[in-house]
Parts: sequence; C-alpha cells; structure tokens
Amino acid sequence: MDVARIKNPKFLKKLSIEQMNRLAADIRSFLIHKLSKTGGHLGPNLGVVELTLALHRVFNSPKDKLIWDVGHQTYVHKILTGRGDQFDSLRQFHGLCGFPKRSESEHDVWETGHSSTSLSAALGMAVARDLKKENNQVVAVIGDGALTGGMAMEALNDIGHLKKDMIIILNDNEMSIAPNVGAMHNMLDRIRSGDKYNKAKEDLEYLMKKIPAFGGKLASVAERIKDRLKYLLVSGVFFEELGITYVGPVDGHNIEALIDTLNRARKRKGPVLIHVLTQKGKGYKPAEMDSIGTWHGPGPYKIESGDFIKPATSAPAYSKVVNDVLQQMARTDERICVISPAMVVGSKLEGFAKEFPNRLFDVGIAEQHAATFAAGLATQQMKPVLSIYSTFMQRAYDQLVHDICRQNLNVTIAVDRAGLVGADGETHQGVFDISFLRALPNMIIAMGKDEEELRDLMYTALNYNNGPIAVRYPRGNGLGVPIDNDLHEIPIGSWEILREGADAAILSFGPMLQTALEAAKVLDNEGLHVSVINARYLKPLDTALLNQLAARQCPILTLEEGVLAGGFGSSVLEYYAEQKTREIIIDLMGIPDQFVAHGSVKELLEELGLTSEKVADRLRQMVHEQDQKTGGNWQRVTSR
Amino acid sequence: MDVARIKNPKFLKKLSIEQMNRLAADIRSFLIHKLSKTGGHLGPNLGVVELTLALHRVFNSPKDKLIWDVGHQTYVHKILTGRGDQFDSLRQFHGLCGFPKRSESEHDVWETGHSSTSLSAALGMAVARDLKKENNQVVAVIGDGALTGGMAMEALNDIGHLKKDMIIILNDNEMSIAPNVGAMHNMLDRIRSGDKYNKAKEDLEYLMKKIPAFGGKLASVAERIKDRLKYLLVSGVFFEELGITYVGPVDGHNIEALIDTLNRARKRKGPVLIHVLTQKGKGYKPAEMDSIGTWHGPGPYKIESGDFIKPATSAPAYSKVVNDVLQQMARTDERICVISPAMVVGSKLEGFAKEFPNRLFDVGIAEQHAATFAAGLATQQMKPVLSIYSTFMQRAYDQLVHDICRQNLNVTIAVDRAGLVGADGETHQGVFDISFLRALPNMIIAMGKDEEELRDLMYTALNYNNGPIAVRYPRGNGLGVPIDNDLHEIPIGSWEILREGADAAILSFGPMLQTALEAAKVLDNEGLHVSVINARYLKPLDTALLNQLAARQCPILTLEEGVLAGGFGSSVLEYYAEQKTREIIIDLMGIPDQFVAHGSVKELLEELGLTSEKVADRLRQMVHEQDQKTGGNWQRVTSR
Repeated sequence: MDVARIKNPKFLKKLSIEQMNRLAADIRSFLIHKLSKTGGHLGPNLGVVELTLALHRVFNSPKDKLIWDVGHQTYVHKILTGRGDQFDSLRQFHGLCGFPKRSESEHDVWETGHSSTSLSAALGMAVARDLKKENNQVVAVIGDGALTGGMAMEALNDIGHLKKDMIIILNDNEMSIAPNVGAMHNMLDRIRSGDKYNKAKEDLEYLMKKIPAFGGKLASVAERIKDRLKYLLVSGVFFEELGITYVGPVDGHNIEALIDTLNRARKRKGPVLIHVLTQKGKGYKPAEMDSIGTWHGPGPYKIESGDFIKPATSAPAYSKVVNDVLQQMARTDERICVISPAMVVGSKLEGFAKEFPNRLFDVGIAEQHAATFAAGLATQQMKPVLSIYSTFMQRAYDQLVHDICRQNLNVTIAVDRAGLVGADGETHQGVFDISFLRALPNMIIAMGKDEEELRDLMYTALNYNNGPIAVRYPRGNGLGVPIDNDLHEIPIGSWEILREGADAAILSFGPMLQTALEAAKVLDNEGLHVSVINARYLKPLDTALLNQLAARQCPILTLEEGVLAGGFGSSVLEYYAEQKTREIIIDLMGIPDQFVAHGSVKELLEELGLTSEKVADRLRQMVHEQDQKTGGNWQRVTSR
Repeated sequence: MDVARIKNPKFLKKLSIEQMNRLAADIRSFLIHKLSKTGGHLGPNLGVVELTLALHRVFNSPKDKLIWDVGHQTYVHKILTGRGDQFDSLRQFHGLCGFPKRSESEHDVWETGHSSTSLSAALGMAVARDLKKENNQVVAVIGDGALTGGMAMEALNDIGHLKKDMIIILNDNEMSIAPNVGAMHNMLDRIRSGDKYNKAKEDLEYLMKKIPAFGGKLASVAERIKDRLKYLLVSGVFFEELGITYVGPVDGHNIEALIDTLNRARKRKGPVLIHVLTQKGKGYKPAEMDSIGTWHGPGPYKIESGDFIKPATSAPAYSKVVNDVLQQMARTDERICVISPAMVVGSKLEGFAKEFPNRLFDVGIAEQHAATFAAGLATQQMKPVLSIYSTFMQRAYDQLVHDICRQNLNVTIAVDRAGLVGADGETHQGVFDISFLRALPNMIIAMGKDEEELRDLMYTALNYNNGPIAVRYPRGNGLGVPIDNDLHEIPIGSWEILREGADAAILSFGPMLQTALEAAKVLDNEGLHVSVINARYLKPLDTALLNQLAARQCPILTLEEGVLAGGFGSSVLEYYAEQKTREIIIDLMGIPDQFVAHGSVKELLEELGLTSEKVADRLRQMVHEQDQKTGGNWQRVTSR
C-alpha cells in the first residue's frame, strides 16, 4: 500500500488483521526510507506502529481525542491522518513538524515536545466532555520515561481522585530517551518480568491444595485473597492504589490483542491504564539493537548498513567540550558532580559517566528534582553541575528561584542547547532563559564565543564560590578553534573587545558574534568602523566598558539569539537608564514576540532578520542617525 | 520551664519522658501566647511539638541534618535551637523569620517556603555525605500535602533508586493547608484506617486455621504470603514498591514511641520512611477543631475565645472580589471553571466552591498539573480560570510557556498575591511574575487599580478569546471603592489617565498608583504637575499613549512593585528603543536585584525606596534634568 496516499484513518475499520499487519510493514518501510533522508525520531515511531493502527481502528479521531505525550512518536499518526505525502519535508523549514501541531490537522488535538503533559491535558478534556455532556473518548499515550516527570504523577493523583472515564496507554518500551533510571522503572521491570506474580501464584496454589474443604466461606476468602494478590502483585498495584484500573501487560506489536484490549477498555467506567509493551526501533535491526539511544532521533543514515551520514566537521560538539572539561577537572577535584535529567546521551556526558560513575547522577525526566538535588549537594560544599537543556530548564524555574538563587548556592548550571535548536522547533528553542534567569538575584549568566572560551567559562564557574552561575552553550558543533589544555579564569563580568571601530559598537555573545564580525567586515569596506564586543557575561554587565562607550556617545547595537522581551539588550537599556545616560543611540536585535517554528538554524535566523546583512543595515541607519543628530560633530574616529 | 531561655537542644538527651512531656506542654503554651500577638503558623507547629523534641533528642543537629519541608512548622525547632527569645519579633521586619533561615542558625541547614523540596535536598545531602565519607544522618520532614507535589515524587523515585541512608518523616496530619485532595490522600487514608490490612489479616488467619499440616514448606509459603500481605497491604506498599522501607504508623504525640522508632530507623540501611500521625493545632481547642484551615496561619487572636483580632476594614479582600465576580459570571456561563492548587481557602474561593462544586477543581499542591489541566479544558472551549499565587506560579512556568502560551489557549490566570506579600517574606514575594510572563508570546498581563477595576479585568479576561491573559491582584484588602454590579470590558492594551499634568508622567499600576498619586499631589503644591497613568495592561503596552508622551518629550517615570530586571519599566524602554525615540528622559523605579525579606508591606516599600517621597524626589530630579537639557525650552505646560 502507498501509505503516502492515505487521507484519513476511516479505512482501518474495514481491514482484516492480516491487512493491518501488512499495512504496519508498509508504514515501517516508509518511515525507514523517508527518515534515512530527513532524520527524525525513528526509534520511537517504529515502536508504536501497531499501537497507532489499533488506536485509530478502535477510536474515532478527531471526535475521540488522542493525546500523545512528548509527541515525537506521532509520525504513524500523521501518516494515518493524511500527512504521509509531506514526509520529505519532515522537520524542515515550513515543512511537516516533528511533533503534533494543531494547525496541521484536526486530529492533532494537543501539542507537545516536552514530556509528561499528556495526562493533565487528557484529564482536562475528559472533565470538559462531562461538563458539556458529550460522549467522546479521551486517550493519552505516555511512555514509561515520561511517567517519572513530577507533573505526570500530579496528574495521576488527580485522575485517581476525579475518576473520569479515560484511557491511559502506558507505552513501556524499557528504554525512554536513555535507559530509564529510578525506582519506578524497577517497579515496571518487576511487573514486566512477572516474577513476583508467578511466585505468589505458585505459593497460593500450593496453599490451596493443602486446604481440605474448599467451599463456602473459605472459597470466598480464597477468592478475595487471590483478587488482592492479582491486583497487588501482578502488576497494577501502583495504579490501582491510586484508583486507576490497570489492564495488561499487552504485547504492543500484536494488533489483534491491542484491538481487543482497547475495545474492552473503552467500555469500562473510570480511568483505565493499559500497560503496552513495545520495542523501540521495532523492525529495523540497527535501531532494535540500539542500547543507548543513538536511534532515538538520528540524522540521515544509510539504510543497509545503519551508518549515520554525518556532515564532515572536525570541530567537537559544544556538549562534548563541556563533558571533556568536566572530566578533566573532576580528576583533581573530587567535589565535582554532574546531575542530568535523562540527558546523559543528549548532552554527551558518557565520558564523565564512564570515568566517574558515582559522581554522575542521571535522575530521569525530573528537572525539578535535578535542580534541587544539585542545591542539596551544594549546601554540603560539593560542586554540583546541573547539565540541562535551556528549554527543559523551564521546568525547574521555581527551583532556580527558591532553592538555588535565594539560598545563593554554588551550583553551576551547564545550559545546553541555548538559543535556536533547529529541527525540533517551537517546543525546544532555548530562547527564554536569558530573560528568566537574569531577573533572579545572585544569578550570573555567561556564554562563550567559541568552544575554547566555553572551557574557560566552565572552569571559572567551578572556581566561583559566591553563588550560582549559568554557562550557556549552543546545540551543535564548535567553531573548530584550537583547544588549550590549560584552563583560565575569566573575571566575572568582564567583556572582551574582539574588534575596535569608532563608529558604532555591537554587543553580542555566543555564535551571534560571528554574524556581528561578518557585518563589521562588510562595513569596513564602506569606511564604517564598528567595534565588536564579546559580551560573554550577560549578567553582570561589564559596566566599565559600557561607561566608556557612553562617554564617547558611541551608537550601540545589541544582538542576541534570544527573545528581546527582558533579554540581554533590555538589560543594557536598563543599565543606561539607571545611569541617566540618555543621549546615546541604542538598538536591539533579537527574537521578537513570537514562537519560532522548526527549520535549520540558518533559515530561522534569516526569517527572524538576524543575519549579517540586516545587522549591517541597522548599523548604517544608526550611524546615519547619529550623524544627523550631531551634524557629524561627535567623537567619531573613522580610522584607528 | 522558660522555653525562651533554651540555648541549644543538647539538654534534651538527659530528660526523662515525663520531663519531655512537660516541656512539650510548656512549648505549646509559649506558642499559643506568643502567636496570639504576632500571628503565625500556629496549627502546623502545635502539631509537631513532640516530633521536633524527639528529633532533637535522637539526632545531633547540626551535624545531623534536619530538613523541614515548606518550613512553616519550624517554630519548635527554632525554640530548641536558641531562638525562643526572639518570638516577639516573629515574621516582623528585621525580626525572626517564619521559615528556616541559614543566616539565623547553624541548625537551619535548608531554607524553604514552597513545598515539596525537602526530599531532593535531603538526597543531595546524603549523597554528599557518602562521597565525602562522612557519617552524619540526614532527616527530612514532609507533610502528606507536600507529597502530592510532583517534585516530591520525582525525588522519591530517585531516593528509591540510589538507596542512600536517610530518613523521611511523613508528617501525616490529615489536613494540609486545606483538606488534601487526590488519590494519594485516599491511599494514606486507607493506611490510617487499616481496614484493608485487618480484612486481609482476618482472611489469612481463617485460611491458616483450615490448613491441617502447618510446617515444612507450607509454613514458609504462608510466611512469605504474610510478609507480602504485610508490606503490600498494611501500609507501605507505595513506598516499598519504590524501594523505601516503610515504618509506622506512629503516634506523633507519643514522645516515647517517636524516640523508639527514630532510634530504630537510624540504624537501618537505605532510605526509611516513618509514617507519623499528628494532629494540626494539637493542644489548643480552637485550632484542633478547625476543619478548613483558618488556624493554619492565623493573624493575632484572643487566646480564651479563639476569636481573631482583625484590623477594622470595610473593604473586601482582593481574592474575595475575584471569587465573587467569578461566581457572578459562572451563573450565566457554564463554561467557567476554576482550578486551584490547594489554595481554595487562601484565595477565598469557598463561595465558588460551594455554589459550583463540580466546576471548582482543587488539584492539591500540584501547580504544574493545575496549569496544564486548565490548558486541556481550554482546548475544549471551556473557560478555565487558573487561580494561583504569583510565587507558586513559578512552579508552573514551563506549563505556561509550552502548554498555554505556545498553543495560545484561552486560559485566564488569576494571579493572587502579586507584589510584596509581607510577613511570609522572601520565599513568597510575588515580584518575578511580570518579568517571566511578559517574555512569553501571546500572554496578556493586567492589574487593576482597585477592586472595582479588578472585577472588570476579570470580566474582560473571560470574554477575551484570543489566548491567555493573566490578571494580577495583591494580597490583602481593596481600597474600599464602590462596587458596580455591572461588568464592563476594558479594551486590551488601553491605559487610563488618572491625573493630567504636563511636567512629567508616572506610569504605574495596582496599589503603587496610590503612591504615585500621593507624590503627584505633593508636587502640585510646588508647581510641578505630573500625569499619573494607570498602566493597567502591562502587556501589551498602550503604544498610542506612549507615543503621545514621546511627542511632547515628557519625562516618564515607571513605578512598579516588581523586580526592575525585565519588568514593566524595562518593557517601556524596549518600546521606545524600538521606536527610535531617543531623547526623552525615562527613569525606572521598582525592586532592585535582591531578594526581599519579611516585614509589613509598608516597611518593605520604605526599605526599597518605593515611597511617595522618593517618587517625588525622583520626579523633581527628572524635571530639573529636562530643564537643563532644553534650557526650559520644551512643551511644558505648568497649568492645565
């Protein structure tokens, strides 16, 4: 079957199980081929082919609401709801989004990207249905990894309390993004293996045999005990205790069993959890055999060999640079610990994990706990490094405020994927952290101009003993600059002049400095000479340098890969307002008040107008304005 | 015993149980008397008198780490660690903090105010101890209410995984701030009542009697089943499943039992949870009989009668005004729902809860779930109102970004206790929300100048169908203005000129407008005429009005009860920078880059320099600067 021609899922109702199995094979083949070109979340989607088919067979989307936790496992859903023909553009600029998107289809009723939100959303939809006296089904699909996120537990608690009709599919693939950690995983493990149940069952059967009269009151007692054992031991104890009916485990690759179970579940009253066992990467050997998650969301690959087609770059990834400097420092400083919320692979911390297994704490998808756990370590004079993606740090905002900054604890925050992240899009852009971090007293924020400076900033952070410090770094690879094995402290709040020019100054940091330098180079040829300043500390500002610029009435352009509202540029405005520096021309460039969709970082920057051409344009205007204002009569020095 | 003279807890080691009981009575009497004058968290502290005595008897603080979740139950701990003599200043300006404070005592090893952080912190301390090869004990005390907070669950999961030696005291008082809701409470309830256990035990005993030969293999089978039943049914199933040894329940008012249990627990390996049953308000009848939480944190009261000594004010509390307008609107609009994370009493939503019990959702201490649950309701065309304190909204930051704003859902956020909150201090000030909300695309932010405008803003919010809108309101009572029963829409982004004056303009909102008006009045007598503008929409700005001010080069002072970094004033600077409006004088007043401790709001504003005198000073300077700059030659009109 040509799966790209599917318009909607209605045809599934008429298929035989055999036809559905063939369709599953066709979808797998389609995904393996398409994603070999575009990249994307292959493993998770191969794992839910049968489950998605069964869901669309049993339920009537969009009347029935299908809510996908995290949302990167919705490719099959997208195919079945008429978007198979767009897979060539998957995760590309103006193309098909890698996550559910309400604007794409009426079948996408809830958007995600971050984990653990589906249960709360589903409960909201179930409550709304009942208040409106409607009769649709609500089904949430959540992975075992997402279940460790605190908000999922908050929702389960409330679901057990409100007892609304709804179905939770626990998609248990034994492997979330990285192997699950934590006690809850152990529990699911025991459920899976069935050891406890089998043992208890054996015991009970033995006991039963010893009982002479098996009738009357005794029978009912035995039944009652058996019932209890069943729900307490078999599996669902955790959920049943919370008031949620547990069903399963079900083989997530057996379409017939899935359809049967879903049909029975939809007739039950109250919340039902169906425990479905799936295999990530099912049907594609390299992905099936993946033990650490490289096939979770790979780039393009060769189908036959399973080799990744990597763009040739000799520069190391920024995350790897951070891992390496931490490993280097941890060898001589036993106080250094690293805490990661399920992102050891994503943040390339495998080296540290291997060398210092007892000082690397993967706490699972649990950003709140990760931050406060780091704070607890810091109270005992350890040197915790909280390694966290900018976008996921949003989950730990209160812990940053209330636990880390308020107590002014020495926690180093390694803010991975700061700035635009590209193909993951809207839900993953790391563009808010400057605004939300800089409002916090005691917080220091830094970003290196390249991988070498990143090393020195990490070193500085771990030697700083007066409170928290966040060191941001982008997704992707460094600039390829030489790495100095020695580490150097960079004085807190000190900026660096990369290029001197008297006509105007650009204040920028991180990768945007390259854009600034390019613009400055272009302008040079026009006789406009622009300083480029590496504002590597976003907080505190280098006030001495700002004062110098003000003293010579230098027009200032701030340039950042973050939201303008409350961002770095805004802090420069605040500083000059406080200093009553009124006269100078200050312009801000950054991300306007909108969410930024997916695409390559380059395409996104172009769309946002954050290119060297636009920077040069803005500087020309500023200098022109300055000339007009002063009649050319200012401390302009066109040559150095 | 004069408990105010206690210097440290060492003397407890030598006391007999009888002496400790007498001391408990003395401490209760001390608390009841002291708090009748100062107010404070009476109920929670009366509930933990014996527990705190037992903890300090068995453990050696500060070597052993005592970590108190939420922290409002640390008065007894403060007394035992030498701070009894400071209770006259409890929760007052420069006085004893109502929460743990590391600067107050070496016995306060962890600061709190928000709930559910203790387990993560304790785990951090236990891990640090083991890495440093030290041998102290780590003990966290957490209430049953705080356990529903997602981050506590995240921590329990990790604690079960890491299996460090540590003790968790589950202080189960059947009543957190409001009666606990949710399935977890039901579970604890079953544990408490022991019904299930007793039933299972009966069944098992009956079964045993029927078995002829009771020895050999059978015995061990029976034992094994009994063991399972014990830990599965009795009580600890939930914790045991997570890998945490469960002990209890223990009577939390029986010092001997507590000491005994604690002594045994400290010798166990791995994490141990002790389930302690306490009664809030124990020993003071009015507080014991409190069923809805009025004695959780009362103001001053008369000891004999238990009557509260309330300051005479005829103006209703802002929260009550919000409840009333919601109740009024909900009568004609069935789509209106209210979601509260355990703050129905705190936010005075009892009226709504009573009239619309099926549209009021108390989700427990679970801010993340609360926000996304509201988002889920909004996708189904309901009109959810998320009622949440500004400070607790920090816990739902990612849900605001990722679920509500990104999907642009019609969620009304009723931001209670926005601005300074007074006696609760540092952990509770609602001063960051403007900065963190205004960076979010699609978010509208409003604050009324008085209770009447607050009503209209809530009405406007619920009629706005184009995304989320946050309506902020302060703690405490309104101004006492007349209430109009009719409701009026206030156009989004429209400000109001409260007072015209040509020399300068103050842009402010909420209660600070009173300060602005006072300053303007003072200046009037000096011949300086200042406009006071009610910037009731903090986002979007009233750009037409801002343009008018710019056109006449009017000096502008922004004044806000929130942090300056990224705050409202900052957004005004950003707007003018974007408009290339360079020349005008703009000054910002607000909260500088520091955490704000406890005290009355008036005292705190004075300390922060946010008084009418300081506002008048600043305006005088600004007009002087303007005169100097223009030689008096600007569009100044000194009389209207």
